[in-house]
Amino acid sequence: MTMISEANKAKARELTAQLTLEEKIGMIHGAALFHTAGVERLGIPPMRYDDGPMGVRADTYDDNWAPMHNTRDEVAYLPSGSAVASTWNPALAHETGRVLGEEARGRGKDVILGPSLNIKRSPLCGRNFEYMSEDPLLTAVQGVAYIDGVQESDVAACPKHFAANNQETDRLDVDETISERALRELYLPAFRAAVQQAGTLTIMGAYNLINGTHCCESKTLLNDILRDEWGFDGLVVSDWSALKSTKRSAEVGLDVEMGVTYDFDKYYFAQPLLEAVRNGEIDEKLVDEKVEHVLAVMDALNMLGDARAHRKAGSYATLAHAQSTLDIARESIVLLKNSANVLPLDAAATKRLLIVGANADRIHSKGGGSAVIKALHEVSPLLGINGFLGGNVEITYAPGYYAEQVDQDDTWQEESLENSKANAAKEAERTKRLRDEALELARDFAASGDPIVFVGGLNHDYDLEARDRENMDLPYEQDALIDGLLDIDPNTVLVFVAGSPVTMPWESKASTIVWNWYNGMESGTALAETLFGAVNPSGHLPETFPVNVADCPAHSIGTFGKKGHVDYAEDIYVGYRYYQTKHVPVRFCFGHGLSYTTFEYSDLEVRDLDGSIRLDFHVTNTGDRAGKAVPQAYVTLEQTDEDRPAYELKGFTKVELEPGERKQVTITVPRETALRYWCNETQSFALAPSAEIHIGESVQDLRLNGKVR
Amino acid sequence: MTMISEANKAKARELTAQLTLEEKIGMIHGAALFHTAGVERLGIPPMRYDDGPMGVRADTYDDNWAPMHNTRDEVAYLPSGSAVASTWNPALAHETGRVLGEEARGRGKDVILGPSLNIKRSPLCGRNFEYMSEDPLLTAVQGVAYIDGVQESDVAACPKHFAANNQETDRLDVDETISERALRELYLPAFRAAVQQAGTLTIMGAYNLINGTHCCESKTLLNDILRDEWGFDGLVVSDWSALKSTKRSAEVGLDVEMGVTYDFDKYYFAQPLLEAVRNGEIDEKLVDEKVEHVLAVMDALNMLGDARAHRKAGSYATLAHAQSTLDIARESIVLLKNSANVLPLDAAATKRLLIVGANADRIHSKGGGSAVIKALHEVSPLLGINGFLGGNVEITYAPGYYAEQVDQDDTWQEESLENSKANAAKEAERTKRLRDEALELARDFAASGDPIVFVGGLNHDYDLEARDRENMDLPYEQDALIDGLLDIDPNTVLVFVAGSPVTMPWESKASTIVWNWYNGMESGTALAETLFGAVNPSGHLPETFPVNVADCPAHSIGTFGKKGHVDYAEDIYVGYRYYQTKHVPVRFCFGHGLSYTTFEYSDLEVRDLDGSIRLDFHVTNTGDRAGKAVPQAYVTLEQTDEDRPAYELKGFTKVELEPGERKQVTITVPRETALRYWCNETQSFALAPSAEIHIGESVQDLRLNGKVR
Repeated sequence: MTMISEANKAKARELTAQLTLEEKIGMIHGAALFHTAGVERLGIPPMRYDDGPMGVRADTYDDNWAPMHNTRDEVAYLPSGSAVASTWNPALAHETGRVLGEEARGRGKDVILGPSLNIKRSPLCGRNFEYMSEDPLLTAVQGVAYIDGVQESDVAACPKHFAANNQETDRLDVDETISERALRELYLPAFRAAVQQAGTLTIMGAYNLINGTHCCESKTLLNDILRDEWGFDGLVVSDWSALKSTKRSAEVGLDVEMGVTYDFDKYYFAQPLLEAVRNGEIDEKLVDEKVEHVLAVMDALNMLGDARAHRKAGSYATLAHAQSTLDIARESIVLLKNSANVLPLDAAATKRLLIVGANADRIHSKGGGSAVIKALHEVSPLLGINGFLGGNVEITYAPGYYAEQVDQDDTWQEESLENSKANAAKEAERTKRLRDEALELARDFAASGDPIVFVGGLNHDYDLEARDRENMDLPYEQDALIDGLLDIDPNTVLVFVAGSPVTMPWESKASTIVWNWYNGMESGTALAETLFGAVNPSGHLPETFPVNVADCPAHSIGTFGKKGHVDYAEDIYVGYRYYQTKHVPVRFCFGHGLSYTTFEYSDLEVRDLDGSIRLDFHVTNTGDRAGKAVPQAYVTLEQTDEDRPAYELKGFTKVELEPGERKQVTITVPRETALRYWCNETQSFALAPSAEIHIGESVQDLRLNGKVR
Repeated sequence: MTMISEANKAKARELTAQLTLEEKIGMIHGAALFHTAGVERLGIPPMRYDDGPMGVRADTYDDNWAPMHNTRDEVAYLPSGSAVASTWNPALAHETGRVLGEEARGRGKDVILGPSLNIKRSPLCGRNFEYMSEDPLLTAVQGVAYIDGVQESDVAACPKHFAANNQETDRLDVDETISERALRELYLPAFRAAVQQAGTLTIMGAYNLINGTHCCESKTLLNDILRDEWGFDGLVVSDWSALKSTKRSAEVGLDVEMGVTYDFDKYYFAQPLLEAVRNGEIDEKLVDEKVEHVLAVMDALNMLGDARAHRKAGSYATLAHAQSTLDIARESIVLLKNSANVLPLDAAATKRLLIVGANADRIHSKGGGSAVIKALHEVSPLLGINGFLGGNVEITYAPGYYAEQVDQDDTWQEESLENSKANAAKEAERTKRLRDEALELARDFAASGDPIVFVGGLNHDYDLEARDRENMDLPYEQDALIDGLLDIDPNTVLVFVAGSPVTMPWESKASTIVWNWYNGMESGTALAETLFGAVNPSGHLPETFPVNVADCPAHSIGTFGKKGHVDYAEDIYVGYRYYQTKHVPVRFCFGHGLSYTTFEYSDLEVRDLDGSIRLDFHVTNTGDRAGKAVPQAYVTLEQTDEDRPAYELKGFTKVELEPGERKQVTITVPRETALRYWCNETQSFALAPSAEIHIGESVQDLRLNGKVR
């Protein structure tokens, strides 16, 4: 964990005192799309930012979003935030951050814009693929590990977007009405952990408004909570072009303004701020504070003076990094359904294999918005399965539907986001023919008992920054294709590559469903290993998959995806906190994830130690292959005199077991964490007098129960 | 080593007896661009061929050269033949073949068209990058190891092009006049070793004529030498569209006709052969022999009957394969000159680095002709250096010259090969401006003592199947650029990515020259590791770099690159056999390769054991870093009553030594190999009565001498 020391702060004050106002102003606004100005005479370099969080984005020109088209910015492409969360393995979240930090430093960056720690409030949010979970604890644990990893390489993490950037519609101007309880219990905890547990050096202010105030103008958020309450002494950077005013942002704890436009001198923190200070409208001390934050972070990153000789150098696009992405992907895939034990498929017994679905032959690193990656390579499902199975299996591929692929690296910033819509007619026309072809092949394969694997889902025309999905349905008429396939073979293996849930109207007909996320440069390899049992799946859902989007409380109780104003009326009842409490049926519940083996839980002992609740229990692998269990600890708070969710996640671990092996497992939860809730009456945190404890494999598969008083 | 057993032959005979003439004909000509027809009723599959030798070529349609544009044929891209030879490490040649075989099998192929074992007779041959060496022993040793590796995966190697395909000009019709001595000593030995030592299952007949006869019609070559003398019982396939006649090829040991055109029924071995047999013009027994060869190879590859259950499956595009390509590339780079000890550069001391030259930012897997690869990835020098050095070094790149990159995967077969010429004017215009920009940067870097690395050379517009180079000069006015750089900084590190030698008129002014070949998917990584000393170079030249192409005996004594007829009048005096014997100065001699350490040789003992000459000596690492020496054993044959070369390579090894370490090294050479020569008088092999033995680090750096009688 890197933190800002007193020495860093002293150095920052000493340097700030030597700077002219012009020099200071240069250091707190973009002098280019991704860096500020330095002060050469004092050895202060520019601060170089770059987009994450799934890899280090390719360089643009200083004042032009056009890509530079050279070979030097090919990088590792890491599994998406949802995939990382889905591992429920902080060591892998740490490895994700470690690789990203090493790559960012290797590419000469100082701040990498990630992780994305917003809560998945609705399945339709366009950036859900970047976000980790609907649960604040899972987001916090994985986020802290990730940030620790990034900052090992003398690169600052930049958790984003602070706070509650939960929808893309009207994201620059939407005002969210959120209760203090929901903010404190759901939308802020991961950021607090990033500050207090990971020592993040920077944080990004969000575009949106909360309760009437732009996040980048919010004294409550940036001064009272972030700095005074949490003790953050790093740097707050705006989301790109998030500022709306010089004075309102200058007077709160927002330090650096970055933007997407090229007229850098006109930025609010550029010439306008310089003039406002000269006019006496704004106190120069406010500028000094911001500059001191910048310099303290620079010093903590060994960017100043003699310390530069010790700064880590980083590296990127290495085979070691590619191997790490594979290690992560292997634990992120979620086996949603395997009711006929179709999986794992037996490679040796497979003579022919039919792969249907355009996502089998598609790569995803080139899209998504600011998360776009120029990947060194990306193994598609089709390549991964072919490469893994080798030449003894006859593999037939049929796209089944038409989905045009547009290279967003070239078009996203400059051109319309409406590409996919414009193409819809063209797609529908070809889709019918492709579906008929695929179904004809499927009949042939089913007749001979040869397996059929469907690989569909979404892509970054749907999971995309700056636009929410219109509905939760699969695009490209995939439901009709899947229906057809299931009619032919109910044991068709359904694989979804996607960043957010989809409606599955055909689910009861299907025996076998695998969820693959956007899973990095070795995505197809990990998928193949999983389908054929070389890897035993151990991913668990970090979010609920509702039956219909209308079931989602952000839609049924609150409002979502509206322009101008949205009401978080569902309060803290987001995700499983809602579905479990209100007994609303879901497609797949939070925490759900199957294995090719089975685990038995027994012998829970709950001990109340000094400040900690210690949960000891046994997990036994009762199946015939090694696997990894994810024991999850939930509480039901009691005697709070408030309405409370039925279950709240408070701890988890991941444990590997050989066949027949039994292990003692311990989950220790700070008493504070276990019993804490936001008291509506006192408007402060309080501890519940007692709670039930539940241990299980998902929020709906609870195996052991205990009690804390 | 895979060989054809008596059981394979019996199975082949048994199946052949059950086939109709039509079925047999279908099995011995292309039914598609890359496969023959099978016979389903008897469980005989098609035989699937694919281009190598640097990776498994992307699939085309059966009857259309257009690429299929999907993601499933991305593969490992291996270092070129010249690079593999340059390692002087048979274990790495074996690994090259092993990876290629695993990938070919993984892609469902039965025969991979490589290695390319032709001798580099002139630096101008367009396919030199695929070929290994000017020396038959080095070609044979590396070729045998490579073939062994390929065939471990139940895939047949297909050494090519049998024989003496040493130029591309008029390659379908050129008639080469070659002495029996040159054939026996230079052009055939690697193929003989492929048959007798590696047990290659297939071999490819060349396009060209030798002494008046097309190789694919040559009884001498295909029957007398290959089958009768060497005992080859595998399959001979024609080069694609090499046949000129039904009868002439049917009556010699040519088994399978493949081609580049789509009218498969009109192939010489298709309808015309069927009719000729029916007419009684050609004996059906000849067809049976061919089919038996095909079936025996299929059986040896476990393609028939129950054996199929045991056939290896292969795999491809794996990270393990990528790692192997890096291991090979690390030992193939040749340090040609380091007279000012500029290399290795000190990464920690480097603040700024200037990289000049368009080859730094270019990848090469997409070109070359049939060797074209759809690589999973290819690390360019620019990416490799940036990724290795990381973010603490400011790396500036200037192309220095203009070289348009055309994707040959899309154009090579269908369009003109004259792209590069047509672009010459455009290139020249931009080149002057780019050169001026680069030189201005170089002056700035030189003034501050910061290193300059030039990365130039050739590309697959020059090193290209079907066209020889017109001269040995660097294209794109690189000489003027290099001259300018050396005037500014004589310690400019000159790196060449190329498949064949270039003239170096500025060489005396340069202190530092590195030769990088086309070095596979991790090329840039290996180069960076070498430049900065993480890898100590150990590659040695497998061919002489002459001062001027006019010095080359194929040009000064024989003829090269002519249409219609070329005369190999230089006889056996090819490469160093000529330069050393005739005392012609060269730029860099055969076997040359520097290290960052130095080796001392001592204590040679020559022992004449049963049938073997055993050479024992000591090698000591006298420098201060670990390194790999390549001791080379040459003979000077005596008392032969014939003109003989001054030196002939007869053995070599590679030995790793820690600083200060001394090792006993043994090279054992069969007496046959050491003393054997082709006697012009008797027109047969004979043994020289005595010979001098020389041990050294190159043919011009001989350290120890001994004698055999």
